[in-house]
Amino acid sequence: MSELRFDPFGREWITISARRLGRPVTDAQAFCPFCPAPAGAGPAAIDGSEAPRGDYEVAVFENRFPSFGGPAAPEGGGPAVPGQRTAPGLGRAEIVLYSPRHDVHLATIPEPGVRLLVDVWAERTAALAADPAVDYVFVFENRGRDVGQTIDHPHGQIYGYPFVPPRVARELAHVREHRREEGECLQCAVLQGEERAGARIVDREAGWVALVPFAPHFPFEVHLLPRRHVGSLPDLAAQERAAFARLLRRTVARYDGLHGHPLPYMMCVFGAPHAIPEGDIWHLRVAFQPVERAAGRLKYLAGSESGAGAYLQDATPESMAAALRGVAM
Amino acid sequence: MSELRFDPFGREWITISARRLGRPVTDAQAFCPFCPAPAGAGPAAIDGSEAPRGDYEVAVFENRFPSFGGPAAPEGGGPAVPGQRTAPGLGRAEIVLYSPRHDVHLATIPEPGVRLLVDVWAERTAALAADPAVDYVFVFENRGRDVGQTIDHPHGQIYGYPFVPPRVARELAHVREHRREEGECLQCAVLQGEERAGARIVDREAGWVALVPFAPHFPFEVHLLPRRHVGSLPDLAAQERAAFARLLRRTVARYDGLHGHPLPYMMCVFGAPHAIPEGDIWHLRVAFQPVERAAGRLKYLAGSESGAGAYLQDATPESMAAALRGVAM
Repeated sequence: MSELRFDPFGREWITISARRLGRPVTDAQAFCPFCPAPAGAGPAAIDGSEAPRGDYEVAVFENRFPSFGGPAAPEGGGPAVPGQRTAPGLGRAEIVLYSPRHDVHLATIPEPGVRLLVDVWAERTAALAADPAVDYVFVFENRGRDVGQTIDHPHGQIYGYPFVPPRVARELAHVREHRREEGECLQCAVLQGEERAGARIVDREAGWVALVPFAPHFPFEVHLLPRRHVGSLPDLAAQERAAFARLLRRTVARYDGLHGHPLPYMMCVFGAPHAIPEGDIWHLRVAFQPVERAAGRLKYLAGSESGAGAYLQDATPESMAAALRGVAM
Repeated sequence: MSELRFDPFGREWITISARRLGRPVTDAQAFCPFCPAPAGAGPAAIDGSEAPRGDYEVAVFENRFPSFGGPAAPEGGGPAVPGQRTAPGLGRAEIVLYSPRHDVHLATIPEPGVRLLVDVWAERTAALAADPAVDYVFVFENRGRDVGQTIDHPHGQIYGYPFVPPRVARELAHVREHRREEGECLQCAVLQGEERAGARIVDREAGWVALVPFAPHFPFEVHLLPRRHVGSLPDLAAQERAAFARLLRRTVARYDGLHGHPLPYMMCVFGAPHAIPEGDIWHLRVAFQPVERAAGRLKYLAGSESGAGAYLQDATPESMAAALRGVAM
């Protein structure tokens, strides 16, 4: 059972998924439950989920201990307190296996495999957006122990949130206001300006740009941006998907060359909230958010970031971009 | 040199302190630079700072490699991009040593020592608020390796931000709107409701309540709240400070009894932004934000939290409060 609770101070929904507490602990396992296995091998319970047991190229399945889904939990809090609201924790949680091979990742999966993965992401984005319980589809990957990954097999997740998540909702308000006041897409304007400036550009691919943002929240943060004003993965044309796959692979290869080991990161696909009335005001952004500020030195989201919401960097975005450009490929 | 850069999508300031990259690495040290030493021992460089070398009870000193301070860095980004702004990274960064003893923490420092610490926090809050470069004073502590603490000696920090940080600015807008629409302090109303409900109350002390919020962002999150509508630490009366010190000690003792080891947490003192015109609309909150969801199981702020801004919990706030109440004291 999952329940949403509204925080009246931050005015945002918090998801309480008490059943996830009972999910199996999977740190020390003798075999990988995400590797293909004979179809008769039976389900492999992993983080509460059942991976497909036959062969596959890219696989998608529902998390058995999802963060969302099911009817609302009974309110356990006694008399209601003014301003405190709950809602059913409806929504979706899927796991995406990137490859049948255990020892690969986005940089080393052959290009056709990443190209297929992009199609799967786009297809699942459209499918989950069609679920009336879902207000926002979020494709993401937490890579590395340092962001909580417990299974090495390359995989990501897709959440179908029953609300537009806070950071997306805030940005939506801002790009809407910019559009109203300036008559333009903020991301289009920024992207054109960045291409003129040049100092924060990391890489280019047909119709795509990879850059370190002017004001990054994370060390070596990189945004992959389509030059065309496209809102969401399903809107990408076939050629744009192929270029995106190539740029994805090269970006992760740059990350892994930076400190000589796989850089821990969160990859976040920020597509358009599908239910907004002005469907075309959003510009797709695929954001890589690493958590390593120097070789072997983690960037912690501590009091300033997690408490006050104020992010600090100890390097300039221009030096981050230069370091990423300089990785031997 | 420190520089602020405005993120036009999130509409928030990011602090770039490139000089911090050169700060000494302090993980593996043979001695503790925060322990008192003979006055002639010379300065101890630690995280770029110089701790006092004589004896002390509670000590405050400036971080030599601060996140804030100094003139603006030269703009390294080439031609300006529309919507992208910078500002000088003025502000303050101080370190507070809680005790001359190395092996203590907030729960085991004797009560008079914590009482003195509260006075020091209040005094520094007032002092930094008087600096015209400072828009918000933030007293906080990152405790434990898992939130980036590298020196075990008990200490916290105080930032004097040159802006009102994003989470505080959002909450300010919300409590202002609640005040305008409902004619009351949101925190006062919630606190009264929580006292009636009871299920999320953890502890009480003269004039103070410790509770798990209805919609927590962190596992076992606890708010220490004065019953009186007080805005900031300097506004607390002597008796309120003494009660606060006692409740602080007991709260950390509960945390450390929870999983049998010191619980990693961020402690955040959310006082009133001192420059707001309606000086009295804010209600002081001291928030403990742990990052361990079960014994030995960290809560990572990964894709959903750090990317989308959507926080998930795998236990109910009522069960968190019950567990904390149940710790043998």
